[in-house]
Amino acid sequence: MMPAQAPERRYAILAEGRFLDTNAKTAHGLLRYGKDEVVAVMDSSLAGKRVLEVMPSLRRDAPIVGTFEEALSYSPTAILVGLAPPGGRLPEEWMETLRMAANMGIELISGLHQRLAPLFPGKNVWDVRRPPLEIPLFSGAALDVAPKVALTVGTSSAIGKMTATLEIERAAKEAGLSAGFVATGQTGIIIAGWGVCVDAVVSDFIAGAAEQLVLRAAETSPDLILVEGQGSLGHPAYSGVTLGLLHGSCPDCLILCCDASDEKIMNLVPRPTPARAVRLYEEVAALVKPAPVVAVSVNTRGLDDAEAEKFIARVSDEIGLPAADPLRGSAAPILEAVIGASKTGVPVERGL
Amino acid sequence: MMPAQAPERRYAILAEGRFLDTNAKTAHGLLRYGKDEVVAVMDSSLAGKRVLEVMPSLRRDAPIVGTFEEALSYSPTAILVGLAPPGGRLPEEWMETLRMAANMGIELISGLHQRLAPLFPGKNVWDVRRPPLEIPLFSGAALDVAPKVALTVGTSSAIGKMTATLEIERAAKEAGLSAGFVATGQTGIIIAGWGVCVDAVVSDFIAGAAEQLVLRAAETSPDLILVEGQGSLGHPAYSGVTLGLLHGSCPDCLILCCDASDEKIMNLVPRPTPARAVRLYEEVAALVKPAPVVAVSVNTRGLDDAEAEKFIARVSDEIGLPAADPLRGSAAPILEAVIGASKTGVPVERGL
Repeated sequence: MMPAQAPERRYAILAEGRFLDTNAKTAHGLLRYGKDEVVAVMDSSLAGKRVLEVMPSLRRDAPIVGTFEEALSYSPTAILVGLAPPGGRLPEEWMETLRMAANMGIELISGLHQRLAPLFPGKNVWDVRRPPLEIPLFSGAALDVAPKVALTVGTSSAIGKMTATLEIERAAKEAGLSAGFVATGQTGIIIAGWGVCVDAVVSDFIAGAAEQLVLRAAETSPDLILVEGQGSLGHPAYSGVTLGLLHGSCPDCLILCCDASDEKIMNLVPRPTPARAVRLYEEVAALVKPAPVVAVSVNTRGLDDAEAEKFIARVSDEIGLPAADPLRGSAAPILEAVIGASKTGVPVERGL
Repeated sequence: MMPAQAPERRYAILAEGRFLDTNAKTAHGLLRYGKDEVVAVMDSSLAGKRVLEVMPSLRRDAPIVGTFEEALSYSPTAILVGLAPPGGRLPEEWMETLRMAANMGIELISGLHQRLAPLFPGKNVWDVRRPPLEIPLFSGAALDVAPKVALTVGTSSAIGKMTATLEIERAAKEAGLSAGFVATGQTGIIIAGWGVCVDAVVSDFIAGAAEQLVLRAAETSPDLILVEGQGSLGHPAYSGVTLGLLHGSCPDCLILCCDASDEKIMNLVPRPTPARAVRLYEEVAALVKPAPVVAVSVNTRGLDDAEAEKFIARVSDEIGLPAADPLRGSAAPILEAVIGASKTGVPVERGL
């Protein structure tokens, strides 16, 4: 478990040849939402340009440089390995850059499955996907945290749960509220500077890890705790992670994330309709603690403005809940619904 | 992943001072259901007696001896460390016995959390809770296995899912059917001689591990595959494991296990009623593949015969499904329901 108060970093992002690639989403996430400074992006194919020139949606600018030496002139304290290398193995040029950086005392930060620490013994390496060694079992302590806890859940995976969570956090800050963002995946963790990759935890401890994160976020007594969801209740490969996180984080309310796609999950099973997803998430959550879905975050990527508006209205009508695309519009309607939700407790006993 | 065809073993069970303890359930499970021979039990507090004399319910007899030397006269090929040591650390006397055994080429088999292999380098050690190093992600291949797959699920954990699964297997064999038992916890694995502790697998791979087990069981083309369930959908600490196993094993039907207890799960949350559990398991399973609950296995421990009969009838009436206590009566009614169930497929697409 990383401390909730992370050190301040000055990042150089290593994204050689592929900064514009969708696989560079950790790099993009850090630029768009990160708490820490980004002083340079390394990608020789874009050298001399600036981030906002090549990707205006990232909101935060930085110079793009061609070499590590140039990046050094911006005095980075950390290097982010922001995308998986082609073929899965780190190319020798990257290794060389990372060795030089590590020898200068610069921190290496990686969201890769492959761990960097064993390749750089004795150096300052943060393998973000590596969970803490000692995670306690779920205890129930998170049932009693004082701040209201909201969790994003989805009709499928990779549907924008992290983005929705971060946009709600942004809306909360704009509204003068303090919000604790609980990161549960590698990009979220790099953005927040702390967190646990719940899907890398041994199964027995998923709920325990989620609980510890909520307890940690509660330490600063924020007005709201916003937990980044993972996977989907209907994702055959990841539903266990989703449910462990749902029960372990003990949310008071849920935000459903959906999109207009009708692609099957893993090309195997149909995604549930938003209405069905709402019903199932609520029922399954209520086994441990009631948590109504209070709003829908709609990912309208690929739709034009008119289509998007129509789709959002249709979802909202069908479910009878506020719906918004926090990227195209604002997360304010979602935040309002979260603010309006009640703290909930464990359900009462029912007998046979 | 252990091979489905395990070597034949001659077990000596190490249960010093605590063979009658409920914590010795791995030892008891091996005696009651194991495929392999048990040649002796080591417990000096019961030395000279026989297993069926002190625990008639175990169904299988063996001599109880006071020392390792006596056990050796029965030519064991494996020693089972069948219960967690007091205080969590293996006492020096046990270590001494295990060292002697290992030096004689006897296999050490342990279901403990603490791994034995590092304590006995180079020796023949099977740490049953240690999952295989390479588990693939869930692929969907288990959706297409030919045999019918049944999974036990529960209103709570520790409610008799393994026992129910093994009793259904026994009933199937008595009915002349071949049944593949898929073990997912340490006791089941020692009984079957193969399997994977799904709760010890990294979360990302729960469903993949469950799928691999079903594929392995299908290799011998049994009439039925019977999967041992874990945890409960409403268990705050373990629900992730339960759901990963439910989706990953792709069952065609479910057997609900329940009892008459109204103890809260973890002293925190009420157990769902059997009717509610049936509805929720079916709905959540159907996100990936429909799997109706076809029968209820009722654990009536602690009730007298009249109470037990009444409780079973009440559950059966309330849910409208056959119900039986396979230990007090027979698993035949449950087996019949499983035989009557259809193979199911992935659900059809539904749109928004």
